[in-house]
Amino acid sequence: MTLHFTKMHGLGNDFMVIDGIHQSPVLTPERIRQWADRHFGIGFDQLLIVEPPTTPNALFTYRIFNADGSEVGQCGNGARCFARFVLDKGLTTERDIPVDTKSGLITLHVTDDGNVTVDMGAPITEPSRIPFIADEASTAYRIALPTPIAGQTEVIVDALSMGNPHAVIDVTDVDRAPVDLLGSAIERHARFPERVNVGFMSIVDRHTIRLRVFERGAGETLACGTGACAAVVSGIRRGLLDSPCQVDLPGGSLSIAWAGATDAPVLMTGPAQTVFEGTLTE
Amino acid sequence: MTLHFTKMHGLGNDFMVIDGIHQSPVLTPERIRQWADRHFGIGFDQLLIVEPPTTPNALFTYRIFNADGSEVGQCGNGARCFARFVLDKGLTTERDIPVDTKSGLITLHVTDDGNVTVDMGAPITEPSRIPFIADEASTAYRIALPTPIAGQTEVIVDALSMGNPHAVIDVTDVDRAPVDLLGSAIERHARFPERVNVGFMSIVDRHTIRLRVFERGAGETLACGTGACAAVVSGIRRGLLDSPCQVDLPGGSLSIAWAGATDAPVLMTGPAQTVFEGTLTE
Repeated sequence: MTLHFTKMHGLGNDFMVIDGIHQSPVLTPERIRQWADRHFGIGFDQLLIVEPPTTPNALFTYRIFNADGSEVGQCGNGARCFARFVLDKGLTTERDIPVDTKSGLITLHVTDDGNVTVDMGAPITEPSRIPFIADEASTAYRIALPTPIAGQTEVIVDALSMGNPHAVIDVTDVDRAPVDLLGSAIERHARFPERVNVGFMSIVDRHTIRLRVFERGAGETLACGTGACAAVVSGIRRGLLDSPCQVDLPGGSLSIAWAGATDAPVLMTGPAQTVFEGTLTE
Repeated sequence: MTLHFTKMHGLGNDFMVIDGIHQSPVLTPERIRQWADRHFGIGFDQLLIVEPPTTPNALFTYRIFNADGSEVGQCGNGARCFARFVLDKGLTTERDIPVDTKSGLITLHVTDDGNVTVDMGAPITEPSRIPFIADEASTAYRIALPTPIAGQTEVIVDALSMGNPHAVIDVTDVDRAPVDLLGSAIERHARFPERVNVGFMSIVDRHTIRLRVFERGAGETLACGTGACAAVVSGIRRGLLDSPCQVDLPGGSLSIAWAGATDAPVLMTGPAQTVFEGTLTE
């Protein structure tokens, strides 16, 4: 069997992308794990397969699998790669692309400069829905640390959810923030019953932040899309930032727009790059 | 520019292999570093480029570059991938393939089952040439540890060079050996002035060992070819092993043959796998 694929990345979050319309690969968890291996296989964070739509309003379906073979719902960096893939491969000529995902129908927009805008949904700030244990809603929760970290016995965080829980911490110099130490302590803090992603944000100006994110279960990553959204929402609702806001992450930059109303969706715009075309023979 | 390449591995040591006879890519350290990146690029341990021979006796030249863009001399896992590449691509029909390398002319042999045999040269056991600081030649040097490791205050090692220095330690159970702790302590021990690769060997029978290697400057790796040679030479010269010997490494198995005389070459036989064909457009 010959299988064609495209290797892409969105800010360093990398994908093996398969046209599953003109090809019908058998995807087993074992095969995905073999392909995902960075020494013995192709190497990727996630596998993304493009398939025909399952509902009348969509042009495509996409499915995303982690390197361990498990299927996941949605992924902002993957959504951008998907949109560029179907346009670059001539699978559509539309720049507004409705697509069925495991998390429901989403619509992606390819901008004139080739970036992709993803509707990331509205933020959730109600503590019980984050979930976060708090007596009342706030934007500055004091979190006590069991042991001092970098001389601190407590940290002030904003807490919200973008479908997954985030704690946002303001820091003066993001390069010197104790991301691993503080991130791992807060990730598993008792007040976050489902653990939490921890963002360290420094504000450059009202339209620009620098951000590093310690992701739940993964440690620091190159570019966490929901983390970028959470940080900007936090800055806007505290009156520190204005929409749209550029977020500079270790893997590159995203633009985040949010109108500020509780039910307004967060729009994330960013790049997607093709690295090479590949062919497997199995 | 379009560039075709093949992704291969030898026991998990992985290579981007380029036909530099029919293509003439411009190789700069910066471009190699970009390609080597496992998230933003193709991802590999080393880049291997096949070029026309520079001497009358060779069929090809190969050059190997590390992921940081620096050119290296020879590499047993890379040599096997090179031999399979030129045969699989029809660049030669010869199964004995003389090739110019930065370390001189070597001849590779492709076996009937598709494995490749590499002449790794003769072992060096004279302490000053390893280099190793010792009063007299031995096969069981006592190395004092500055601080106890796993309850031990000293370790008994055999020391030899396969072009690079190796310390070989016998262990009962290779799975439970303190490879990182003991490896990093011995790697930088004062008696090895150019540091040392540290092999942890358990003998299964006279023709089979299990081996884990802590590589100088790299930590534990999947399959160190010179480490496999050093361990088998050590076992043979101490009367514990017979040639040929199968070496089971975390990345897979190698077969090592050595006639036992001081100037006899060590022959390493092992697999080389093609993973996929790729095309870059730059």
